Amino acid sequence: MFKALVYVTLKESVLDPQGNAVKDSLHSLGFNEAADVRIGKYMELEIDLDDKSQAEQRVTEMCEKLLANTVIEDYRFELIEG
Amino acid sequence: MFKALVYVTLKESVLDPQGNAVKDSLHSLGFNEAADVRIGKYMELEIDLDDKSQAEQRVTEMCEKLLANTVIEDYRFELIEG
Repeated sequence: MFKALVYVTLKESVLDPQGNAVKDSLHSLGFNEAADVRIGKYMELEIDLDDKSQAEQRVTEMCEKLLANTVIEDYRFELIEG
Repeated sequence: MFKALVYVTLKESVLDPQGNAVKDSLHSLGFNEAADVRIGKYMELEIDLDDKSQAEQRVTEMCEKLLANTVIEDYRFELIEG
């Protein structure tokens, strides 16, 4: 059993209107030190496999097929045992 | 200048219908080893401050006031210099 922590972020070159909206909201609340905001997704998956390299391979496939849109998003993940 | 990496997750006791939908989609794609899925948010903020403890305090305030709904969500963050 592994826990996979998956981070999905927009590629650098892709505009992030949601991040800009949050930045504007922070400014209007007085947080002018928030110079830039980028919003991504964070997912925790419990993976019912015992072999770590197999789990890595399967989570990579999940990211490529469903969890990330690789045209505009990057992903990375870490596996935690137990 | 700091980069704040902010993770916002639903509290353990809160149901996650989006996570369940992703889990069902993973199963229908053949990823039956995905036993549980929880979806959260991941944000990268550039913080234009030089003092780390001040930056920590301000990011905490941002999380409390805007970035997380502390009734149903937990947050944590890390600060990276530069």
